[in-house]
Amino acid sequence: MARLYGGIEAGGTKFVCAVGSGPDDIEAEVQFPTTEPEETIGRVVEFVKQYRSELAAIGIASFGPVDPDPGSPTYGFITTTPKPGWANTDLAGEIGRALDLPVGFDTDVNGAALGEYRWGAAQGLDTFLYLTIGTGIGGGGMVGGQLMHGLVHPEMGHIRLPRDATDRGADDKPFPGICPFHGDCLEGLACGPALEARWGQSPETLPPDHRAWPLEAHHLALALVNFVCTLSPQRILMGGGVMKQRQLFPLIRRQVLELLNGYVQAPEILDDIDHYIVPPGLGSRAGVLGAIALAERNLEGY
Amino acid sequence: MARLYGGIEAGGTKFVCAVGSGPDDIEAEVQFPTTEPEETIGRVVEFVKQYRSELAAIGIASFGPVDPDPGSPTYGFITTTPKPGWANTDLAGEIGRALDLPVGFDTDVNGAALGEYRWGAAQGLDTFLYLTIGTGIGGGGMVGGQLMHGLVHPEMGHIRLPRDATDRGADDKPFPGICPFHGDCLEGLACGPALEARWGQSPETLPPDHRAWPLEAHHLALALVNFVCTLSPQRILMGGGVMKQRQLFPLIRRQVLELLNGYVQAPEILDDIDHYIVPPGLGSRAGVLGAIALAERNLEGY
Repeated sequence: MARLYGGIEAGGTKFVCAVGSGPDDIEAEVQFPTTEPEETIGRVVEFVKQYRSELAAIGIASFGPVDPDPGSPTYGFITTTPKPGWANTDLAGEIGRALDLPVGFDTDVNGAALGEYRWGAAQGLDTFLYLTIGTGIGGGGMVGGQLMHGLVHPEMGHIRLPRDATDRGADDKPFPGICPFHGDCLEGLACGPALEARWGQSPETLPPDHRAWPLEAHHLALALVNFVCTLSPQRILMGGGVMKQRQLFPLIRRQVLELLNGYVQAPEILDDIDHYIVPPGLGSRAGVLGAIALAERNLEGY
Repeated sequence: MARLYGGIEAGGTKFVCAVGSGPDDIEAEVQFPTTEPEETIGRVVEFVKQYRSELAAIGIASFGPVDPDPGSPTYGFITTTPKPGWANTDLAGEIGRALDLPVGFDTDVNGAALGEYRWGAAQGLDTFLYLTIGTGIGGGGMVGGQLMHGLVHPEMGHIRLPRDATDRGADDKPFPGICPFHGDCLEGLACGPALEARWGQSPETLPPDHRAWPLEAHHLALALVNFVCTLSPQRILMGGGVMKQRQLFPLIRRQVLELLNGYVQAPEILDDIDHYIVPPGLGSRAGVLGAIALAERNLEGY
């Protein structure tokens, strides 16, 4: 029988908790809204405790910013989040102590990336990216078989991109973007709320042939080109609410090829772009399954 | 007594070969122009052979593109270079067999990065970048303690950047850049030949207060911001001929802070940018010392 793990996808809006060993073996699952830390952590512990005797470890994939450095005194903390009450919360420590189990801990995107590595669209790779395009834009993944960490967690959403001079609004001005730090960085141009600000309606309600989508694909393709030139991933996974617009994938792939213009001589890109830029294999399950994978990886050290 | 290694810095213009164990212990060194592969490799072997009995291993830091994947059938090859005669040259294999010594092999930038990690400005770090701004723009470094590799070697020089609308030439048009693939990508805007094309004179002859330098710093700062947001390095080392213009460093640092605008909450950046963006500690010795470090790392597996 496979070892069982508790997986906790800690999101800013909701928490998803599951007990299992992988996508085909989930014994129980629950979700609840993210309220204040004490109450929310209490519900996590209450749920997981029922299965305590069967569990080998727990994993937590958390919204952030978090401290994922095991050598740091604030390892496992949610650090400077503006979310009320959650700054400086010792999420991994409190849950681990209450349950007396080892904890694997990382960011939500790195968790999802690890889930995809273990059971999804990144199996067998050692250098790949997982991007999520939704309320914000975040990124994670692996380089050389290790989850990406650095000085802080690299989030990828705030890179700067060239603007197309023909890309102007009704007022003949370029869209200024919505990022409070940078205006028209990637996130400021291409996250869900940026689309809503620009087009005056929720992006889910824009028809698939709306001109918003080729432009969105252009911005995302520019970002992907920069990531390819910087990290040379073996594959790029794109998830999140905006990427449910499946018409974006062929548009992005074509523009990535055009923008690279033959510079990267890799058959994986030149001949097989359909398998190079892909949706997550686990779909919306990547988060909680990623948390289970974090538990397993931490315990087994793979 | 420290183990001795042979280090070979294989450049497109010249080869530098040294025998030693580190920056304070170089027993012999030679350099010669890069001619055709047979002759050039012959000179390498002839030089190193004199010290053969004292050597534990050799290291090669090579111009590229190269294949640095030990699992690949073309590991150690220079692959698709346009340099006449050098495409598909089994550089590591030929030298290693002729000398019957183990070979550590990587790109020139990763070699220099490793030299800086071992003895220079990246000691004690596990995630950092080494950029070279010269005839071209290249990058390498470490992520999580491993030299950066991926689908192909990520070279970093070809990322796309925003252009400043006020940045226009005498003809009131934006400088188109010189990259044959992308026009105004980072390399197309900011490498040495791009500066020469734009200002009509060799960059070494431009005075330190020429308006070329704030603009060069702006382009490089935009690139650094993208690398910081993508990889979150603990430090960025900048070498190469263009960076001998030391007035660039304070300009770049200031613009990086302005462009990040407080987004990355790391004291290493916010409070200590002078030690975050730095020249290589080994200066122009990083290349050949990096080759010695590749020999050592390959043998000792650190």
